[in-house]
Amino acid sequence: MFLEICQNIWTKLQAMATGAVPGKEDTSRTGLSAGGLLLRNGGGRYTVVSPELYSLCHKSSTKFSVRCLTGATGEHTRGSSYGRRALLAAGAAVIAGVVASFSHFQKAEMKSATPQSKANENDVLEKCRTFMSPPVTDVGTLQKNKDDIKSKMELLIMETQADVCRALAEVDGSSFKVDRWQRKEGGGGISCVLQDGRVFEKAGVNVSVVSGFLSEEAAQQMKSRGKPLKGKDGTKQWWFGGGTDLTPTYLDNADAAHFHKTLKDACDQHNPKLYPDFKKWCDNYFFIKHRGERRGIGGIFFDDLESPSKAEVFEFVKSCAKAVVPCYIPIVKKHLNDSFTSEEKHWQQLRRGRYVEFNLIYDRGTKFGLATSGSRIESILMSLPLTARWEYMHEPHKGTKEAEILDILRNPKDWV
Amino acid sequence: MFLEICQNIWTKLQAMATGAVPGKEDTSRTGLSAGGLLLRNGGGRYTVVSPELYSLCHKSSTKFSVRCLTGATGEHTRGSSYGRRALLAAGAAVIAGVVASFSHFQKAEMKSATPQSKANENDVLEKCRTFMSPPVTDVGTLQKNKDDIKSKMELLIMETQADVCRALAEVDGSSFKVDRWQRKEGGGGISCVLQDGRVFEKAGVNVSVVSGFLSEEAAQQMKSRGKPLKGKDGTKQWWFGGGTDLTPTYLDNADAAHFHKTLKDACDQHNPKLYPDFKKWCDNYFFIKHRGERRGIGGIFFDDLESPSKAEVFEFVKSCAKAVVPCYIPIVKKHLNDSFTSEEKHWQQLRRGRYVEFNLIYDRGTKFGLATSGSRIESILMSLPLTARWEYMHEPHKGTKEAEILDILRNPKDWV
Repeated sequence: MFLEICQNIWTKLQAMATGAVPGKEDTSRTGLSAGGLLLRNGGGRYTVVSPELYSLCHKSSTKFSVRCLTGATGEHTRGSSYGRRALLAAGAAVIAGVVASFSHFQKAEMKSATPQSKANENDVLEKCRTFMSPPVTDVGTLQKNKDDIKSKMELLIMETQADVCRALAEVDGSSFKVDRWQRKEGGGGISCVLQDGRVFEKAGVNVSVVSGFLSEEAAQQMKSRGKPLKGKDGTKQWWFGGGTDLTPTYLDNADAAHFHKTLKDACDQHNPKLYPDFKKWCDNYFFIKHRGERRGIGGIFFDDLESPSKAEVFEFVKSCAKAVVPCYIPIVKKHLNDSFTSEEKHWQQLRRGRYVEFNLIYDRGTKFGLATSGSRIESILMSLPLTARWEYMHEPHKGTKEAEILDILRNPKDWV
Repeated sequence: MFLEICQNIWTKLQAMATGAVPGKEDTSRTGLSAGGLLLRNGGGRYTVVSPELYSLCHKSSTKFSVRCLTGATGEHTRGSSYGRRALLAAGAAVIAGVVASFSHFQKAEMKSATPQSKANENDVLEKCRTFMSPPVTDVGTLQKNKDDIKSKMELLIMETQADVCRALAEVDGSSFKVDRWQRKEGGGGISCVLQDGRVFEKAGVNVSVVSGFLSEEAAQQMKSRGKPLKGKDGTKQWWFGGGTDLTPTYLDNADAAHFHKTLKDACDQHNPKLYPDFKKWCDNYFFIKHRGERRGIGGIFFDDLESPSKAEVFEFVKSCAKAVVPCYIPIVKKHLNDSFTSEEKHWQQLRRGRYVEFNLIYDRGTKFGLATSGSRIESILMSLPLTARWEYMHEPHKGTKEAEILDILRNPKDWV
């Protein structure tokens, strides 16, 4: 029997920022309750899906996400092999626990991780020094395999995490708490959270690099969304998925246009067809089915992207990642000092209740995370708002600002 | 081919009351965020289940619930027949829309519904006059079939709804809003909601009587929880399920003992084995798996109850329904005028966040409701608290009152 060595590694970076601290100057008049980013780079195999189910049950995510799956496949293609534990292709030197003061920790760790540091490896090492924490994967391993898509993805998301954290921290005037965690089944992550800040009630930028075999359940999730099953030939499989969207409490046409235009520009560098397709996908994805409304005003969303080539898709994903800060930060800055009434705060709280409904009922990442053994609950549920509200039979009056945004959530429009 | 006429009718009455209005005298020191009641009486068929799945995914509910399914079964036992629309055995004369002032409406409706009212039917008619609204099923039909289990269940839950509403309204000093709604696929319901009251932030007591065929999805839900499939012989199937539980913010040993003792007494009238079994079932049912904690301090929960006989199970269910007011109301009255600190309110809000997690992620009734076409979203999600809170990495300090209840939620104990 041919023994398979299979590898599943995925990496995510999630940035979300929920609005405002009542009574402080903040963004809650426009109520930017989430601007998100999620990157993934993972390897897996045997993905068989029905796209209809995917559309109905799993078209939902909070974040900009990019995923790449790679996996060497062997003789066996049946589901029973998913659950098996095996050697992991990605060696992970993970430091568990909380890193309160990172800069000190980082330097010490970097040194011990790379005693054999050489001149030609300095580029990776130098890059790592700018991150919020040492990467999940051992720096020496990243240097050694620096042309591998997994290494490139991990470095990209670590870099993006640092960029997003710095931008948010600068706006807020406070700093992120950095938690480094280890997953006993393989891999780990870095959660950066800013809570009860001057501008942000809660902002989180998470990375995880998790290695192991796909569980039956995870494989089923991929099958259900239509990912075709390759295998039996020992080749690796990879794909990218991602997205970013905005969830304002009130509609600001200029903000919506800026957000979408910035994403469109990032997409258009690669192919003018991408933005229109991924904008539509996003509107469908963030649909709160039982309410008949979207969670927010959309953005872009894509999954199972694997053409024209790995290198080109990686470049596209990189452009998207780089677009998150210019998409979102100018909107935050613009409304930083807006005042707001208690009625506006009230509407924001009701909209955050809908946000919770979406994330807990439909969000694929949340469902997947909660069902995965060894996953870190605090990182998965970090995207829930600090406070939310539900009222029986609430419906805004016609002609109000509340009715205006609700109409857009029910009937998404084109912004560029 | 033998043509099947199948019938599915279920009825629920749900009472839940979420704590307190900040700044007013209320119950939030003990934070009785939910004392619930849900009754169901329904007819269905072809139920095949695996009990393990039931335990893992669906062991979760907020309410006291009683369900009875009945259905005539024909030649076909395959799933494909579920989706089919057919004549409904239960005639439902349902008035759509909102009934703001019920007492007036009730009398007018009662008369038009029973022009042929006779002396021997006065008992049913008299009973209906005490309800919050005319029952979902036409009063004449209920009179005609008054010995039928469906009619008896509908009358019982309408009576219980009225009893619970009256008790809550008396405590609060305000009155319920009564919404009567119709489901175009068959049947309807009566939602009674008291919001922003003197004592209760939100209290809801719902009834629904829904007729039609089980959808594929609904049938799958029943299969997944282990309900054995009968059929092919034209007999009707029925069973009862139900439960009630308490979700306090802080532990009060006397309250917990009173709540459980009252339920135990109700159960013991019928069989001393019932309480211990159903108490344990409840602890398993209200489990927030990803947190490793229960939603509250439990109560009783049962499902698929069909022995020793329909008449005896109905009497047991009646005892349970009658126990809800004496279980819960004395606890509310005891703490009505308790003061509370902002720290206690803060902890209550965090616990309500967990309550939301349970209801949206695990609660079978919520999931079933949201997936059922024509269901009334506002009634299903009425059980969500007015406000809730999520904080990253919150863990109470050792030796505090917060740690005390959390320990009980993680390690349920026996109260009587």
